Amino acid sequence: MLSERLRDKSLYQKIVSAEEAAGWIRDGMTIALSGFTRAGDAKVVPIALADRAKKENKPFKINVYTGASLGSDVDAIMAEAGIVNKRLPFQADKLMRQKINSGEILFVDQHLSHTAEAIRGNILDPIDFAIVEAVSITEDGQIIPATSVGNSSIFVQRAKQVIVELNVAQPSSLAGIHDIYDPGLQGQRLPIPLTSVEQRIGSIGIAVDIDKIKGIVITNQPDSPSTIEQPDEETALMAGHLIDFLRHEVKMGRLPAHLAPLQSGIGSVANAVFNGFMTSEFSNLEVYSEVLQDAVFDLLDAGKIRFASGCSITLSPRKMDSVLNSFEKYRDKIVLRPQEISNHPEIVRRLGLISINTALEADIYGNVNSTNVLGTRMMNGIGGSGDFARNSRLAVFVTKSIAKNGNISSIVPFVTHIDHTEHDVDVIVTEQGLADLRGLAPRERAPVIIEKCTHPSYRPQLYEYYQEALSRGGHTPHVLEKALSWHIQYATEGTMLISEPSKKRTDMQPLSVGGGWH
Amino acid sequence: MLSERLRDKSLYQKIVSAEEAAGWIRDGMTIALSGFTRAGDAKVVPIALADRAKKENKPFKINVYTGASLGSDVDAIMAEAGIVNKRLPFQADKLMRQKINSGEILFVDQHLSHTAEAIRGNILDPIDFAIVEAVSITEDGQIIPATSVGNSSIFVQRAKQVIVELNVAQPSSLAGIHDIYDPGLQGQRLPIPLTSVEQRIGSIGIAVDIDKIKGIVITNQPDSPSTIEQPDEETALMAGHLIDFLRHEVKMGRLPAHLAPLQSGIGSVANAVFNGFMTSEFSNLEVYSEVLQDAVFDLLDAGKIRFASGCSITLSPRKMDSVLNSFEKYRDKIVLRPQEISNHPEIVRRLGLISINTALEADIYGNVNSTNVLGTRMMNGIGGSGDFARNSRLAVFVTKSIAKNGNISSIVPFVTHIDHTEHDVDVIVTEQGLADLRGLAPRERAPVIIEKCTHPSYRPQLYEYYQEALSRGGHTPHVLEKALSWHIQYATEGTMLISEPSKKRTDMQPLSVGGGWH
Repeated sequence: MLSERLRDKSLYQKIVSAEEAAGWIRDGMTIALSGFTRAGDAKVVPIALADRAKKENKPFKINVYTGASLGSDVDAIMAEAGIVNKRLPFQADKLMRQKINSGEILFVDQHLSHTAEAIRGNILDPIDFAIVEAVSITEDGQIIPATSVGNSSIFVQRAKQVIVELNVAQPSSLAGIHDIYDPGLQGQRLPIPLTSVEQRIGSIGIAVDIDKIKGIVITNQPDSPSTIEQPDEETALMAGHLIDFLRHEVKMGRLPAHLAPLQSGIGSVANAVFNGFMTSEFSNLEVYSEVLQDAVFDLLDAGKIRFASGCSITLSPRKMDSVLNSFEKYRDKIVLRPQEISNHPEIVRRLGLISINTALEADIYGNVNSTNVLGTRMMNGIGGSGDFARNSRLAVFVTKSIAKNGNISSIVPFVTHIDHTEHDVDVIVTEQGLADLRGLAPRERAPVIIEKCTHPSYRPQLYEYYQEALSRGGHTPHVLEKALSWHIQYATEGTMLISEPSKKRTDMQPLSVGGGWH
Repeated sequence: MLSERLRDKSLYQKIVSAEEAAGWIRDGMTIALSGFTRAGDAKVVPIALADRAKKENKPFKINVYTGASLGSDVDAIMAEAGIVNKRLPFQADKLMRQKINSGEILFVDQHLSHTAEAIRGNILDPIDFAIVEAVSITEDGQIIPATSVGNSSIFVQRAKQVIVELNVAQPSSLAGIHDIYDPGLQGQRLPIPLTSVEQRIGSIGIAVDIDKIKGIVITNQPDSPSTIEQPDEETALMAGHLIDFLRHEVKMGRLPAHLAPLQSGIGSVANAVFNGFMTSEFSNLEVYSEVLQDAVFDLLDAGKIRFASGCSITLSPRKMDSVLNSFEKYRDKIVLRPQEISNHPEIVRRLGLISINTALEADIYGNVNSTNVLGTRMMNGIGGSGDFARNSRLAVFVTKSIAKNGNISSIVPFVTHIDHTEHDVDVIVTEQGLADLRGLAPRERAPVIIEKCTHPSYRPQLYEYYQEALSRGGHTPHVLEKALSWHIQYATEGTMLISEPSKKRTDMQPLSVGGGWH
């Protein structure tokens, strides 16, 4: 019943087609789309806009801001239509990535908690249209988001005009799980009062001046399902290493029995690590994260997770039906917040999260590259990993030790791009093992990372690099002329493996591992 | 009068010599010393300990934690005596730096707001002795620090035993300017209630169980004066660029007329930038920083600064006498806080600071190296720059465009070590100009940085690198095999200048500068 979803009857006259709404968007404008990790995204107006570009003979460019990645191939379709000038703060689409790497699309890779501040501070180009998905608009003028909050709140607040995509395929029972809080201007704001994962501090919807809503487009299309891969032998090993470590931390009195609120980045590896909790003894767990993936709902179903706070819900086809069709049972166990709150340094540090994020590669001192393949080609973006890692109680990075059939080592002498510095990386986990770097100096870190995390096929050549680096001296010893040689060789020869490793390693004294600090 | 400084008479019996106190410290222990940027440091017990090491024939090693750098040559004397195993979180001594770079001393380079959390979380080795300078101990058992708070509060709270260096050379009138607040355990803490630079949220001293004080050593020695260099032509130019930019930000409505609370890192350049405010039209300024240097007091004297919050006071000989001898006039304009509060992400982001920190080098995409010369040799440490830059409203990094008589360019293709990633660097200032990087994609950032910040003698060769990188493509284009070539050439030939630059540059189309975003 549309009347349940548009409770103010005067809103009916704002209903327009996607094509009409797309027609309002002009060359040079900035649009801001709802959507975070494929969930709750604006699904039809951007596509109608791309269609218009193809039909018209007048090329135009717009800037596109979002929460994070979109579903429904929106990024691909916009990229293909050639209408995107600048894109921020995150994307995960193959075609858009190509156009970013060719320089056709300008991509600003931001910490996901920073975008709202940049908009509030008038740092970015002003937003002409916010286009946000909703399940309903209340009689008092609140837009009720669907499966994500993302940046929708600040977009609606700051945009000159708003287009709502009212999606009747999203259950209206989602109303009530959102908690919309705006911290206000820097220099004038109060402490954010959140002190526990389940606490509600805001309103159930995004307040909007009805006059600012220029159009409402009725849609009927589910979210794109997540493309997450199932856990495999290696991700199961990684989960095992991490859970053993957490067990040890509890035993040492450094974590309570129910651990600390958990954050996990998007992706198969992080999801698999969460899966590992299913068969563990841990219960009464809490989640304070961005995206709530399949494993979170499996753990909620199993009674392992007590409460989960996120900013979006992104599920596989298997899980989407069961969760959205029986949403009532999750209502008192879930809250979705704006991404600047789910990722806010103030809250991350206060709650003392355990954060688990994915690395593309890490170096022998613990610097992490999360974004740029071979230092140059963007994958997706830093996302929220920096918001969490810098401020969490325990910053964990996970990666398989090798990629591309063993031709790439994820542990290298020197990473080609740094998103997380040695100062912010506490623990690195691969299927080979876990390196606990807390309280270690660089010369203590290197042998631990080489021994615990590196694939055996790369361990001798990494030791060899480190031994040569040690002979040069320094706080973080390196051989600058060889620091990037693994990547250079991969680019030219297709493998980082050195074909004839020198035999020095067998003559070496074993390196001491660890400082006995834990 | 000692009775004014030790108000509980029972404390008299705890008075011991520095030598006796040093005698309590055994091999393998961890000691934690007060002191932040040469101010309020423990001055005699660590030196007595180093003397003991020289006299005894039994070598021993200890771990040394501090707030930041020490004065009184304490780090040099401990390093020379060979008694330091591990040192954290910051140092600035020439001899200690040598021993860190030779691998003899293990140095853990931490964000200055992180050390207290690591101690509270039992991540680091437990502290056997906290040795803290005080101006007095109150009858209710509060240690009143001197010219710095640093980490003294968490050190005293967590140490097994405490040694107080009661320094009668520090004016007892310092009592009342400290504001000691402990946020409590992660996961159990409340919001930190601070919402303005002048607000007091804690107590005037560090609460201590008197029984934990094992000894009190009476000292009479002023702080080591700062070694800051006077502003020169280039630092004056940098200050000018930055103040022009701030003026523009006010005009654009992005900053209020009195700006936002200012933070400035230690050092001559940052101090010089502050000096630039002296002749500017700005008034009613606020400071929320770590160390309060000469320029802050000059600006207070001139009525330009309304209030300054810091965690230490470090002055030149010129300024030290006048400030400490007439301290009453600053009493209602200054507060000193623990460094985890002065640097806390929660507060930095809430207040929306303008942070100004020094870079060793920056690359064409805005990544900043603050610590490791040629990627390997530690200078001082990251200090608080990361606490501020990541969370401030405006993150500014300053550096002269060249060093070593022009043989080093501070703007390079690829920095050899990253402390601050492109995500955290808003503005780079050299004497050549100012690059405003906010909202820019990497391919927009590079030409702005090259054009505005690079020294003319390096501009052509940097353009040439970037042009070749562009031909390779990517989101952050690089030529990996040449990315570190400037540093490698400097190490072998003593200059980064390429002797025969190709003439390509003159044939090139001019690069477009800026995206028209501001």
